[in-house]
Amino acid sequence: MSDLLAINTIRLLAVDTVAKANSGHPGAPMGLAPAAHTLFKQMRFNPRNPAWINRDRFVLSNGHACALLYTMLFLYGYDYTIDDLKSFRQLNSKTPGHPEAELPGVEVTTGPLGQGIANAVGLAIAQAQLAATYNKPNYELFSNYTYAFLGDGCLQEGVAQEAISLAGHLGDGLKLIAFWDDNQISIDGDTNVSFTEDVPAKFRAQGWEVLSVKDGNDDLEGIAAALAKAKTTNKPTLIRLPTIIGYGSLQQGTHGVHGSPLKPDDIKQLKKKFGFDPEQNFVVPREVTESYAKHVADNQQVEVEWNKLLTAYTKEYPELGQELHRRLDGKLPENWQKALPTYTVDDKPVASRKLSEIVLTSIEKELPELVGGSADLTGSNLTRWPDAVDFQPKSTGLGDFSGRYFRFGVREHGMGAIINGISAYGANFKAYGGTFLNFVSYASGAVRLSALSGHPIIWVATHDSIGLGEDGPTHQPIETLAHLRALPNLMVWRPADGNETSAAYLRAIESKHTPSIIALTRQNLPQLEHSSIEKAAKGGYTVYPVENPDIILVASGSEVSIAIDGAKKLGTEGVKASVVSIPDFFTFDSQARSYQLSVLPDGVPIMSVEVMSTFGWSKYSHEQFGINRFGISGPGPEIYKFFEFTAEGVADRASKVVQFYKGKELLSPLNKAFESVHA
Amino acid sequence: MSDLLAINTIRLLAVDTVAKANSGHPGAPMGLAPAAHTLFKQMRFNPRNPAWINRDRFVLSNGHACALLYTMLFLYGYDYTIDDLKSFRQLNSKTPGHPEAELPGVEVTTGPLGQGIANAVGLAIAQAQLAATYNKPNYELFSNYTYAFLGDGCLQEGVAQEAISLAGHLGDGLKLIAFWDDNQISIDGDTNVSFTEDVPAKFRAQGWEVLSVKDGNDDLEGIAAALAKAKTTNKPTLIRLPTIIGYGSLQQGTHGVHGSPLKPDDIKQLKKKFGFDPEQNFVVPREVTESYAKHVADNQQVEVEWNKLLTAYTKEYPELGQELHRRLDGKLPENWQKALPTYTVDDKPVASRKLSEIVLTSIEKELPELVGGSADLTGSNLTRWPDAVDFQPKSTGLGDFSGRYFRFGVREHGMGAIINGISAYGANFKAYGGTFLNFVSYASGAVRLSALSGHPIIWVATHDSIGLGEDGPTHQPIETLAHLRALPNLMVWRPADGNETSAAYLRAIESKHTPSIIALTRQNLPQLEHSSIEKAAKGGYTVYPVENPDIILVASGSEVSIAIDGAKKLGTEGVKASVVSIPDFFTFDSQARSYQLSVLPDGVPIMSVEVMSTFGWSKYSHEQFGINRFGISGPGPEIYKFFEFTAEGVADRASKVVQFYKGKELLSPLNKAFESVHA
Repeated sequence: MSDLLAINTIRLLAVDTVAKANSGHPGAPMGLAPAAHTLFKQMRFNPRNPAWINRDRFVLSNGHACALLYTMLFLYGYDYTIDDLKSFRQLNSKTPGHPEAELPGVEVTTGPLGQGIANAVGLAIAQAQLAATYNKPNYELFSNYTYAFLGDGCLQEGVAQEAISLAGHLGDGLKLIAFWDDNQISIDGDTNVSFTEDVPAKFRAQGWEVLSVKDGNDDLEGIAAALAKAKTTNKPTLIRLPTIIGYGSLQQGTHGVHGSPLKPDDIKQLKKKFGFDPEQNFVVPREVTESYAKHVADNQQVEVEWNKLLTAYTKEYPELGQELHRRLDGKLPENWQKALPTYTVDDKPVASRKLSEIVLTSIEKELPELVGGSADLTGSNLTRWPDAVDFQPKSTGLGDFSGRYFRFGVREHGMGAIINGISAYGANFKAYGGTFLNFVSYASGAVRLSALSGHPIIWVATHDSIGLGEDGPTHQPIETLAHLRALPNLMVWRPADGNETSAAYLRAIESKHTPSIIALTRQNLPQLEHSSIEKAAKGGYTVYPVENPDIILVASGSEVSIAIDGAKKLGTEGVKASVVSIPDFFTFDSQARSYQLSVLPDGVPIMSVEVMSTFGWSKYSHEQFGINRFGISGPGPEIYKFFEFTAEGVADRASKVVQFYKGKELLSPLNKAFESVHA
Repeated sequence: MSDLLAINTIRLLAVDTVAKANSGHPGAPMGLAPAAHTLFKQMRFNPRNPAWINRDRFVLSNGHACALLYTMLFLYGYDYTIDDLKSFRQLNSKTPGHPEAELPGVEVTTGPLGQGIANAVGLAIAQAQLAATYNKPNYELFSNYTYAFLGDGCLQEGVAQEAISLAGHLGDGLKLIAFWDDNQISIDGDTNVSFTEDVPAKFRAQGWEVLSVKDGNDDLEGIAAALAKAKTTNKPTLIRLPTIIGYGSLQQGTHGVHGSPLKPDDIKQLKKKFGFDPEQNFVVPREVTESYAKHVADNQQVEVEWNKLLTAYTKEYPELGQELHRRLDGKLPENWQKALPTYTVDDKPVASRKLSEIVLTSIEKELPELVGGSADLTGSNLTRWPDAVDFQPKSTGLGDFSGRYFRFGVREHGMGAIINGISAYGANFKAYGGTFLNFVSYASGAVRLSALSGHPIIWVATHDSIGLGEDGPTHQPIETLAHLRALPNLMVWRPADGNETSAAYLRAIESKHTPSIIALTRQNLPQLEHSSIEKAAKGGYTVYPVENPDIILVASGSEVSIAIDGAKKLGTEGVKASVVSIPDFFTFDSQARSYQLSVLPDGVPIMSVEVMSTFGWSKYSHEQFGINRFGISGPGPEIYKFFEFTAEGVADRASKVVQFYKGKELLSPLNKAFESVHA
């Protein structure tokens, strides 16, 4: 089979796919078909087992070009039919408008620009970490490459730039090869309207190898040679690939082919030009199918050999081998959770960021898959256990690639996308990133994709409120919890004490498909009398029970103990107040409605207490005590007083609430007329 | 006076300031004092009139070093006393933990890393735009420079990288000079743990001039020479300034001096070393005061001359001069709002992104201060009026600096920070940026600072829901409105038709201190019978009134007309349903409670209808119909049906709600036991 036949088949399938949908992006697939063909030809993967751990990874960072990816996956015999291509971008199809991680052969969800290349950095880091941890002489279990395609759009995004900079720093040994689709076109037209930097020089300044192909449209040998050369360097490599967007179209080289289907006449002339029947659509010449099938068969043999290698390895290194088997099965070590610390009311007050450090230090030995770091706030986030080894190239003298602690630099968004990539690698990785809660917002794009893609990563988000004090309103979250709680498929833990912190980690580590934010205090918190890991792990429970309460106070994190103090004060004034702790909305929402209503029943006024925006709390309460303005700089305890988050401030408002609702019929806010079918 | 005396005065004031607060960052101020002294010496500004429009701007992008900034402002006679320095980081002081834009002499709020340098790009753009618009031969009204200090942390942030790249592209004529505090230290220790790129080469690759000072601690002549040289180039310039963090401290050059006060003994030896009395604090030698006062007096003369120039200019160019006077007074043209289009129910359905384009096209001629652009989505956001001129260096042949349309590239976060900077310049700039609503999240850090700092910028946020269709869940906002609505001081408009779109722009353009997001549809929306600019400008109103309703449906944007269809259907079934449109929570919340309760009264069940997370809607409703999961790829209308957002889907749920609450006593969700004192 001629390469050109395969390439033109790819081009035309992508064109037909977009035309049938009457929606999508044909230009980039047409320009990138030669590179995709040449790259896939030498990749190791098994379409019958897309989860094979040592497969080469391919990331389409310019996710809008997904007609290309679906075409490749279809041609290579992944679980797609020609009908899947024909239902591109249709409701409930297997070929949505951007690639989604749960689809066969799609490594990570892309489309939001810049994320894919940053995920690719994470995938390459994961490979390097596993290789340094498990590979032994004659047992190169982990040797895969991570490849990425990216366009000019990705290169302009900050998240990409952060990850590219870090990859350059970590470079010595990362098996990462990226193709830059240098087609000079973005949605606003020629890239010269906004993007005129010297991309190769910029990458070189950041420690990358940069190679160039003369002509990405025709020079297959050049593409193959660049790939081969990239593998001889230890650095991450950018291959500059000058292409013509919409190659072959009458509109080639313009943004007219970027985001709209080609016109019927254009498609006809294209098919003629490529030697295809202009009247036929979705044509796959048998030679192409056969040639690709041959590659698949070869690849399956590669996996068979790898499995043999793993068997032999497990004999020679039984402990490591069994650990690896366990990780590949996606199982946690038995009883790992026994390492989680528990506390009683007599234990001393501790900041929850410190409680988090104690958890990490306690569980890291049980969980070799636990890896993480901080965006240059290690000493503040307390994310590093005492004898952690840094993940650094050996050449730096600062660590090695078996290290499990990452120095992400001041790169929150890049960090988020990188830990998504580590998680996407598989092998049960539990990856975490640390920063101040307020700066998780910098990484919103990556957090959203964690939730959408179901990467069970963890954000260690310290300095979680006005309690951080002097740094002031620029650093004090107000809207942050509302933002995160509004995301589907995201746990947002805000533990109130030691047991609740352990519960947060229990759920976060156990999670298979839901990421977690763990919001932690800078300031000390007392250990609560009625907390337990078991109760807190339900997401919400009564932490200060009284019989037949006149009011229920519902709070989270650092405000739980203040609410309890308020309840005690109310008690002395003859008002019976109980307190409910809701460390995580998502987990509480997943409990049976009967349990939820036992915690927040009908007939009792409920007031929320949290030093944040009240936005969203009316879901659980009739009245809200919060802070609907930005914070203020000053010592933390003084700020709490300033905003009246004290026993007195709580009791005062609670009394008003009791008075207001006296004699009024009252439903629990959770008692609803209908259940959302879309929850 | 010797320069060294002034520099050591600055260093010791910063050290004393942090020590007194027992909180803060002494190291960077100590290292940067020589550069600050040398820079300020040649800057033009007037501490008695910090708002003088042609002043040089100084941005401390590494905002944690604010003890330096407050010290400089104090020494230069801005409205700060020594007691203000002594109350650093205390509650309600004038010297909070990070610089805040409302303080005298502080140009922009910094602290969240990377924002300041991006703001500085915006400030320099604003200067260039005004110069190209108003300067005439012999009337160089706008000639100021924008200076920035930034540290390694800023350089690692994506938002900074985006703005730096764009500044390099726009470079030919931007008066922007940045000092890189190359002190090799960040919070995690030596920058070599994560940041080893070749910064000068990277800047050069992006079109910047890069100069180097040999020794930032001592080489004052070198600093001055670099500054002078930077002014001879047309490019934005980075001056590399190697400094020793905590210069003079026993711990100099370590991260020990980054974020904690120096120890008392260390401070004593430092004072001795610098020739100061070790027992005295907050000492300002008279020579220093006098020397700085002299510079201020000279500068005041500069402003006097400038005012004369403006007077003469206004005589020679009366139209431009009066326009400029109006803008400097912060006033809009009289009757500008008459240019806002209005619609009747007979007008045809139009997508609100298109309605937005019609508004921009209608008002741009009235408002020369209206400038904006898109993050490479011009044709999708419809942000460019037909005959707009692009803001581009003339040398590109693509526009000129009098242009009011920006090609931001795929750089949402950078765009957000840049329009903040344009707004911060003054001259009544109304700056907007366009992207998909979902990707406003990429810019969360900048959006938050718009709200905190009170920059009345505007986000034109199109493709605002599942209605965008085929692009799928990666592009369909779910949590986004909840996130933005939870921010204090932010309008989040989601207009339902043409009149509401005009109302959104009315409020956004009139705003002095509150930024706006305007969420707009890709799909067509019908014109509503009862909408008007006046009503919608209240943020919420009854858009489909019925007498004594059995249920109130409350909706926003594209769901308002669906709710009305639902109400009509309910009417045919004997259920009286009215519909309330809430185009903006923030504005509705600012109305009198009596008005709010007239719209959402006691005694009637209220159900919200919005194709987003229901999070937050319980604030206005008893029941919520929304989408608490991620979206789906497919044609927009089919997705609406899939999620049952149709007249039938609304009516069905509304009937259940009416049934559920029949006979139950019901308060309006806005009828509360207490008013939050902190709203």
